[in-house]
Amino acid sequence: MTMNADTSLARLALKETAESLEKQLTKLLPKADGLEARVVEAMDYALMAGGKRLRPFLVMQGAKLFSVSEQAALQVAAAVECAHTYSLIHDDLPCMDDDDMRRGQPSVHKKFDEATAVLAGDALLTLAFEILADEKTHADPRVRCELVAAFARALGAQGMVGGQMFDLAAENRDLDQFSITRMQNMKTGALIVFSCEAGAILGKADGRRRHALKGYAHDLGLAFQIVDDLLDKEGDSEELGKTAGKDEDAGKATLVSLLGVERARTQAEMLIAQAIEHLEIFAEKADVLRSMAHFVIHRAS
Amino acid sequence: MTMNADTSLARLALKETAESLEKQLTKLLPKADGLEARVVEAMDYALMAGGKRLRPFLVMQGAKLFSVSEQAALQVAAAVECAHTYSLIHDDLPCMDDDDMRRGQPSVHKKFDEATAVLAGDALLTLAFEILADEKTHADPRVRCELVAAFARALGAQGMVGGQMFDLAAENRDLDQFSITRMQNMKTGALIVFSCEAGAILGKADGRRRHALKGYAHDLGLAFQIVDDLLDKEGDSEELGKTAGKDEDAGKATLVSLLGVERARTQAEMLIAQAIEHLEIFAEKADVLRSMAHFVIHRAS
Repeated sequence: MTMNADTSLARLALKETAESLEKQLTKLLPKADGLEARVVEAMDYALMAGGKRLRPFLVMQGAKLFSVSEQAALQVAAAVECAHTYSLIHDDLPCMDDDDMRRGQPSVHKKFDEATAVLAGDALLTLAFEILADEKTHADPRVRCELVAAFARALGAQGMVGGQMFDLAAENRDLDQFSITRMQNMKTGALIVFSCEAGAILGKADGRRRHALKGYAHDLGLAFQIVDDLLDKEGDSEELGKTAGKDEDAGKATLVSLLGVERARTQAEMLIAQAIEHLEIFAEKADVLRSMAHFVIHRAS
Repeated sequence: MTMNADTSLARLALKETAESLEKQLTKLLPKADGLEARVVEAMDYALMAGGKRLRPFLVMQGAKLFSVSEQAALQVAAAVECAHTYSLIHDDLPCMDDDDMRRGQPSVHKKFDEATAVLAGDALLTLAFEILADEKTHADPRVRCELVAAFARALGAQGMVGGQMFDLAAENRDLDQFSITRMQNMKTGALIVFSCEAGAILGKADGRRRHALKGYAHDLGLAFQIVDDLLDKEGDSEELGKTAGKDEDAGKATLVSLLGVERARTQAEMLIAQAIEHLEIFAEKADVLRSMAHFVIHRAS
């Protein structure tokens, strides 16, 4: 059961997630009719540009393990995607990674302007917290507070923002495997772990199950990042929807630049196997998450 | 009692607030020891640059009206100052208001760099939410969720960010008094109203008292903004700690540019009288807030 490398379950669930997520995001976007409508347009533009919706998928599937209502899970999925989108908008800014393309179309600061991009990111981050604190996310305010606190830790100076700061500050420096892994756990891992953990929080899961799910997310996140770096090195920009070869040009150390393509791929495969092992406790209820692990290693964009 | 124009009570309380706030902020700043420490340094630099601490003052005094513990009030005061500081860092960016000086010293993007400034703002906004969701802020998670939700509304696309977007989009346009007032209610008013309202939320105040305190904050916020615009027109950069005359240079419409100095000052005085009227219900318990109303109209920086 566990080693079935079929990715079709994951593909189907990703497609379903994307559809319901986009409906939910449309409902949650603030209304604005004055000149401030420009920032809402930019938020909408960035949110609706597509993307795999991996993090929302993880929220939905994590929540399913604990029989959480789809409504609750969709709220958290939307919050997570708002935060992910905010990070992409800010990371693409000229003063950061300076990327003109994202998800196959002009990034927000190219389509609008830099000021609007900064503000759209700020507003998306704020909206994410507003969604989590809303009664619709969970009837129990204790659960909502726990979500807000865990989310903030995943995003802050010891999480995503810290990882991005580290990445920028480390340009043109030689990093060892430990430092690169630590940086990626912060930069992309923390939000991926939160995405899975959110299901356990919503479902008031016991410590063992929560720990297992976080273990899966941790390994999946690292593997995902290695594959991302492999695609950045080998992929073409059109298929990726963003500029390929950026990391190398920017002098950024990745596990691929450190270990080489072959060993990096082996490392990713090992992480995927390990991720799947963590799911044992959930038996066949975790088949879609298993399928996602295979999808991550086989994806082409 | 209500028309005593003495500002000494407010000055003393501002000083006390600043001292305990700075201790609290130091406690709450995340620790970081890798290369990501740079973003924490930038957060610290911006938070500790001084400033009047008006918003924390309003949180502390609002909370006092409802006998809220100082510990709880200080947590919210710190969250509000983190959010205010984030907005200053992002507003000072070259792509926004492009200001090199803030509170008498180089703004964050000059002292560090633009990328660090964007990230420090992002991390401060995130930290603000983390603080509000923490158990130390209030034992009742319902109260914490209400704080997070009201805070997010004050900061988002229909609040502070919306106001900043409006302000940027309106450059070199003629705005009427209604539009300018609406913009300023969003841009600076919403967080000032939240600062007062937080005390009422923490203290589970009844609707009438909550409404009265919000009315005070609303009028005080508008008056504060008019005085800010008067100082921007008439003040000198050294005393202000930031560049004077910026609004006029940027073609920004303010009530001062629309109404002229005299009528704008009269308007501010009327708002201050109105703000004080809202405090009637609190009798002598609101004397420090009354003193602040007089301070706002008499301040020179």
